[in-house]
Amino acid sequence: MPQFLSTTDPDFETNFRALLGMKREADEDVDKAVAAIIADVRARGDQALIDYTARYDRLTLTPETLVFSVEEVDAAIATVPPQERSALELAAARIRAYHERQRPENALWTDEAGAQLGWRWTAVSAAGLYVPGGLASYPSSVLMNAIPAQVAGVERLCICAPTPDGVANPLVLLAARLAGVETIYRLGGAQAIAAMAYGTDSVQPVDKITGPGNAFVAAAKRRVFGQVGIDMIAGPSEILVIADADNDPDWIAVDLLSQAEHDESAQSILITTDRAFGEAVAKAVDKRLETLERRKIAGKSWADFGAVITVRNVEEAVALSDRIAPEHLEIACADAQDIADTIRHAGAIFIGAWTPEAIGDYVGGPNHVLPTARSARFSSGLSVLDFMKRTTLARMTPDALAAIGPAAETLAISEGLEAHGLSVRARLERLNT
Amino acid sequence: MPQFLSTTDPDFETNFRALLGMKREADEDVDKAVAAIIADVRARGDQALIDYTARYDRLTLTPETLVFSVEEVDAAIATVPPQERSALELAAARIRAYHERQRPENALWTDEAGAQLGWRWTAVSAAGLYVPGGLASYPSSVLMNAIPAQVAGVERLCICAPTPDGVANPLVLLAARLAGVETIYRLGGAQAIAAMAYGTDSVQPVDKITGPGNAFVAAAKRRVFGQVGIDMIAGPSEILVIADADNDPDWIAVDLLSQAEHDESAQSILITTDRAFGEAVAKAVDKRLETLERRKIAGKSWADFGAVITVRNVEEAVALSDRIAPEHLEIACADAQDIADTIRHAGAIFIGAWTPEAIGDYVGGPNHVLPTARSARFSSGLSVLDFMKRTTLARMTPDALAAIGPAAETLAISEGLEAHGLSVRARLERLNT
Repeated sequence: MPQFLSTTDPDFETNFRALLGMKREADEDVDKAVAAIIADVRARGDQALIDYTARYDRLTLTPETLVFSVEEVDAAIATVPPQERSALELAAARIRAYHERQRPENALWTDEAGAQLGWRWTAVSAAGLYVPGGLASYPSSVLMNAIPAQVAGVERLCICAPTPDGVANPLVLLAARLAGVETIYRLGGAQAIAAMAYGTDSVQPVDKITGPGNAFVAAAKRRVFGQVGIDMIAGPSEILVIADADNDPDWIAVDLLSQAEHDESAQSILITTDRAFGEAVAKAVDKRLETLERRKIAGKSWADFGAVITVRNVEEAVALSDRIAPEHLEIACADAQDIADTIRHAGAIFIGAWTPEAIGDYVGGPNHVLPTARSARFSSGLSVLDFMKRTTLARMTPDALAAIGPAAETLAISEGLEAHGLSVRARLERLNT
Repeated sequence: MPQFLSTTDPDFETNFRALLGMKREADEDVDKAVAAIIADVRARGDQALIDYTARYDRLTLTPETLVFSVEEVDAAIATVPPQERSALELAAARIRAYHERQRPENALWTDEAGAQLGWRWTAVSAAGLYVPGGLASYPSSVLMNAIPAQVAGVERLCICAPTPDGVANPLVLLAARLAGVETIYRLGGAQAIAAMAYGTDSVQPVDKITGPGNAFVAAAKRRVFGQVGIDMIAGPSEILVIADADNDPDWIAVDLLSQAEHDESAQSILITTDRAFGEAVAKAVDKRLETLERRKIAGKSWADFGAVITVRNVEEAVALSDRIAPEHLEIACADAQDIADTIRHAGAIFIGAWTPEAIGDYVGGPNHVLPTARSARFSSGLSVLDFMKRTTLARMTPDALAAIGPAAETLAISEGLEAHGLSVRARLERLNT
């Protein structure tokens, strides 16, 4: 049973805060283990990678087989049924079209002092994408990570994907090819992150690492941050649906379940202006749970973390939504667009009942790597900008330096940084002679 | 004595790699202490803040005096000499003008399938800026952090600045006022970061924390990352100057010293096509070091981490510069603009001999919070974007869902995510009835 809350309950604020503060991730003590793995990979290189892969993936590798050969990729891709290939191609094309609009503009101008100012965006030289293995090995995530990198102009892209017992997902390899990734390592876990950050004889180091992963991968990304750039530390998936009574309860039920089925730690919340509708949705969820393949996972997520919140009006719904700052926000209301316009904190908004969140996971176009655990308050989904960086530009003329240099000198002296001031003064003196 | 390298040396590659790999920061074991401080602030709130401030800043506070009163700020600001006030106002105006051009554009379009797609940028609701105390208490840094936040539209801005022995820097308070920051806490160290991240009775929590700090502050920022957003972990300052022989050696010498004087761990590197010019610069540095106020700091930085690298040609200079990925790159060459155009990795470029780096620290306009320690390979200086986040938008019509939904369903099934597919299927079935 999910929680049922109502803003008219006397203890609503307490219960809502408890919902917000729910710790959904196991507090595993993995950091120490991860530190040791990273140190080992830095010290022993390829041999450490081979040892960890034997231990965790039950797979014997050599420096030569750390990476998939072109023939291996070809052979795997040939097994993909045409319908799945077409679907992946459609997804790739739509994701590419969306992300191509994100390429940022350079700027250059001359101000009234005669100073030329601006900035220029350039791509990261090399990026590494982590793709989880096992159940969470999603070809769609390959596209969502690799295509923005490719659109940004990253020259060298690689993937690390574990292949437990040597089993690879052909769709993952096809997605890599569609996104222009040539190098795919049979590597997972903290050891893969360490290899991409520091390099080994067989793994060229990269400048930026993105992609989801388990607690070991997340801890490793946090540790190598600084040595390389990382995207974000992704937590369990979440959906918030705001729905009025004028909806099919079953549609909303499957939308809620589409997040709940990801992970027992996922969270699905419905906010509605109509309590009876909320109850109807909960009943529809129970009905779907009777037959859903992943009913055990989805049922536990819904029971432990699910919630149905009844509000007095749409304004209350928006205010609660902004406090939740959901990863995915679906708005199934008559005035969905107006409501969307007033939302401040959300990773992605799906507007109107004809826009199920799952569309955004695959073929909508926007990225499905989105800020979780309320981090949409301060961060954004993955984009082309994550694979680029900005260099600021400044060019003074003698006149411009004469105009603004004395102020710089004054501030340098007041900050006790004499040489800063002298570097301006030496030039200004030339002008006066 | 700085190191002298030349690309014609047989052991150049080895020595250059050693230069790149130099560890300039003390590997202090502060992380454990910081974890304890954060836990203590979360547990004891204001009282922990008061206790740490008594211990580290020798200052007795109460919940009421944690924050500067308006009268205290007024009184301090009144002591600022007019010349310094004008210089700070000029700096604020120029920084604001530059950053106002960084406001990002929203986007919304309808694609050929009839899907409405786009994104919308919104500001972070609340941001906290850390301003170091003591020698490194720089009013210019207040402007560089607070103005982008203000331009982004952040509603609530606060500053934490330690005041050792109760001494505050009036220019810091003036800079805060110029940048629209109302709330300034007398707090420093890891406890200040913890308070801004988690909140106490007297400190309202924020969503994003930026600003430089010592090893404790850096470790605390790394630890609270996820609970709040952070800007970057700043390391010691660096400058790389590329200069041809047609320069005044003294100009280049003071430019190198303007970074060296920041910190004994700062690094100043000259790359030149003319070895004799490099030697003349080194001689000019020594001369300036005889009288420079901060000669002890600057001299140690220059001796320990300084380098003069002679290259065969400009192409070599550019290639080495991109490997260094300097925080600050100054190009004092006849064809400075052409060289700047080919640089790929640098935080900020100062083009031409009339653009000393120090201009960028104060009044140029671009931000002086820049990626250090080679992180310009994957990250950018502070900007308006650091205080904003992007929400992606998608709105399907029934026709659009009919066009692209089946591909989403196919991929959902292939990924084993049945409910994802059902959320599309339920809607498509309605269309078929």
